Amino acid sequence: MSQITALDTFDLRFPTSRMLDGSDAMNPDPDYSAAYVIVRTDDSGPDGHGFVFTIGRGTDVQVAAIDALRPLLVGADVDALVADMGSTWRRLVHDSPLRWLGPEKGIMHMAIGAVVNALWDLAAKRAGVPLWRLLSDLSPEQLVDLVDFRYLTDVLDPAEALHLLQAAEPGRAERAADLVARGYPAYTTTPGWLGYDDAKLARLTREALDAGFTQIKLKVGGDLDDDVRRLGIAREICGPDVRIAIDANQRWDVDEAVRWVKELAPFDPWWVEEPTSPDDVLGHAAIAERIAPVRVATGEHVANRVVFKQLLQARATQFVQIDATRVAGVNENLAILLLAAKFGVPVCPHAGGVGLCEAVQHLAMVDYVAVSGSTENRVIEYVDHLHEHFADPVRVENGRYRAPERPGAGTEILVPSLVAHRFPDGEVWR
Amino acid sequence: MSQITALDTFDLRFPTSRMLDGSDAMNPDPDYSAAYVIVRTDDSGPDGHGFVFTIGRGTDVQVAAIDALRPLLVGADVDALVADMGSTWRRLVHDSPLRWLGPEKGIMHMAIGAVVNALWDLAAKRAGVPLWRLLSDLSPEQLVDLVDFRYLTDVLDPAEALHLLQAAEPGRAERAADLVARGYPAYTTTPGWLGYDDAKLARLTREALDAGFTQIKLKVGGDLDDDVRRLGIAREICGPDVRIAIDANQRWDVDEAVRWVKELAPFDPWWVEEPTSPDDVLGHAAIAERIAPVRVATGEHVANRVVFKQLLQARATQFVQIDATRVAGVNENLAILLLAAKFGVPVCPHAGGVGLCEAVQHLAMVDYVAVSGSTENRVIEYVDHLHEHFADPVRVENGRYRAPERPGAGTEILVPSLVAHRFPDGEVWR
Repeated sequence: MSQITALDTFDLRFPTSRMLDGSDAMNPDPDYSAAYVIVRTDDSGPDGHGFVFTIGRGTDVQVAAIDALRPLLVGADVDALVADMGSTWRRLVHDSPLRWLGPEKGIMHMAIGAVVNALWDLAAKRAGVPLWRLLSDLSPEQLVDLVDFRYLTDVLDPAEALHLLQAAEPGRAERAADLVARGYPAYTTTPGWLGYDDAKLARLTREALDAGFTQIKLKVGGDLDDDVRRLGIAREICGPDVRIAIDANQRWDVDEAVRWVKELAPFDPWWVEEPTSPDDVLGHAAIAERIAPVRVATGEHVANRVVFKQLLQARATQFVQIDATRVAGVNENLAILLLAAKFGVPVCPHAGGVGLCEAVQHLAMVDYVAVSGSTENRVIEYVDHLHEHFADPVRVENGRYRAPERPGAGTEILVPSLVAHRFPDGEVWR
Repeated sequence: MSQITALDTFDLRFPTSRMLDGSDAMNPDPDYSAAYVIVRTDDSGPDGHGFVFTIGRGTDVQVAAIDALRPLLVGADVDALVADMGSTWRRLVHDSPLRWLGPEKGIMHMAIGAVVNALWDLAAKRAGVPLWRLLSDLSPEQLVDLVDFRYLTDVLDPAEALHLLQAAEPGRAERAADLVARGYPAYTTTPGWLGYDDAKLARLTREALDAGFTQIKLKVGGDLDDDVRRLGIAREICGPDVRIAIDANQRWDVDEAVRWVKELAPFDPWWVEEPTSPDDVLGHAAIAERIAPVRVATGEHVANRVVFKQLLQARATQFVQIDATRVAGVNENLAILLLAAKFGVPVCPHAGGVGLCEAVQHLAMVDYVAVSGSTENRVIEYVDHLHEHFADPVRVENGRYRAPERPGAGTEILVPSLVAHRFPDGEVWR
């Protein structure tokens, strides 16, 4: 019997604010960061790696929250934990004193997500397959067992979820082979950070088209005149067929969002992302109705499956943007994939940051192979930052993510990067 | 000029689980706890005290989140901070890297609440008045300046808020005098904890009636047969006129809530509290519609003003249960009082725990004097636990909270209690 012996945690920060990479209307100067955890065992097999993506100050608090999970896991039987990840998830999420600190939202929920993802990384490495493949090979019954349907059953219960997954069972092998052969569609946010000047925006937009992307994204919401000018530059370079999404990063109130988007509508934005508070289901619904045919996208800051349920019930979002580290890990994201499939809404994962591309690609690929069965109008965000720190960096070629081949969840950071970027004592910060 | 010199923090825990005080359907054995902060200055005047109420494990993480606010406040000019608490609130809540960890929810948002409340305690002590009086003496314009209307303006903007407050201006002095003379109505949850046996329930119910309460509350949601039996015992003792609220502490899904409440409806429950996830606005709305005329109450775990806005928009709750330490302090609770006043929904604060009665009474009293202008169908929760640890404990007499007279926000814990209950090294835990 193998036991979990340690949760080793790290406060990792990358000095991205020096170049204004990642700058948007709400986050002018982020230092992309990770509250990182390694789940260690007493056998000679692999460790499990996971993290929460953060943007600088406060990463130490996120690390402290992961530390608080140590007593729930150290000493546990690895095989038992990993063989029943549905129960493992419930045990962590429903722990009464820790749940009080959310409930099911914010720092403690994300900490659980990091540990859950680390356990999935461990499980996939032990199985010798990439996570997307491990999950795609589970039976519909096994997938349903991974999901906690508490607070969802008015919209989706286990029986209906099973039915959805069974309906997607034919063609799994073909879709997996298609993924391996052709990859999964991507779009890029690299050109569009708010802190970049017009020349850099134009140059990076051209580079994105040359690299084969058929969708890009621009940050908006700082200044309307700037947005009109920048969107005009991008549209002229892109022509009418390349999709341009815009992202306000929660900058607006409802009426302001409607007014602003209508000013930008002549540039044919594919979606407007995070027009207002991620908690405002009814606000998103009002915006979506009033700005149609421009579509709303949201999700990267949506706290949990209960809020996603409502966004779908209220037709408040036309794209579901899951994030690998905002909710409580793989299991909760499976719940969200199922909800989106029920409503026929495309899942277009949020990525970028530190390792979000590496982590979330697995979920989009499971969605394609085993849940929605489609890549239509589905794209994974791609930003070309910080991949060099990962043991299995994403490979984006000709505007598509190639399917990962190495065992694991993609969440492992290289040891030299762990050492150099540790805050405040790594060499980058000394 | 006075400066803030320190934020001293404490992990305080009270061994309430030994008696099953506070036991409910979701929290079987809480140790009531507080992540406590003292804001110190370099002048000879008072310190400011604040806290987040927690229930045991993880309080250390909540303390770490308060610690993370230290760099934003130490060295700041006390007069400037306190004279413009609206700007102070925005500066804390909109700090980009810390906001990422919510946004505006969970551990980081509650940490900001503790510090905001400590600054209000400081302000009230410097002014030499209790907090309810300090706030009730502000002009409508000054009150509006305390509120951040971001994400609210589709429902309530500053002009309409001002109008509401101006409409409540006549009669302020009479209502304040009424508070001093007669106090504010209370109800008690003391009889109804799920871990108490029938005899203890009956005895405590009788004692509540003898003490002058006209509303009590019972925890439900563990076992339906038990709930029927316990509610029957309580109703028989109370007779038809005393209100009995029931509280499910988020135990149910939507359909389950409706079924369960319909079984208990013959006992005429005054409200059903937290029937499901606090994030589920649409779920609460569905429940409220289907169980009418039984009313829904919620709020103690509602993360922020944006979710309260929607609960009111959707007619999802018939009582707004503000909590002193769940949202970002006094300022955000003022926003919520204004939203409730706009919709004409009574505010009935959640209390109990550690110090929640002491803190939240001030907000209910401001609501009466300066916002809603009414105590009709309004009651503050009361539980007779742990008041002895406070410098200015609540005084509940004949079923009513007497108006606090001492300067401050009621949030100060006595030094011997700080020392004895510090976890893990205080004498209670050694």
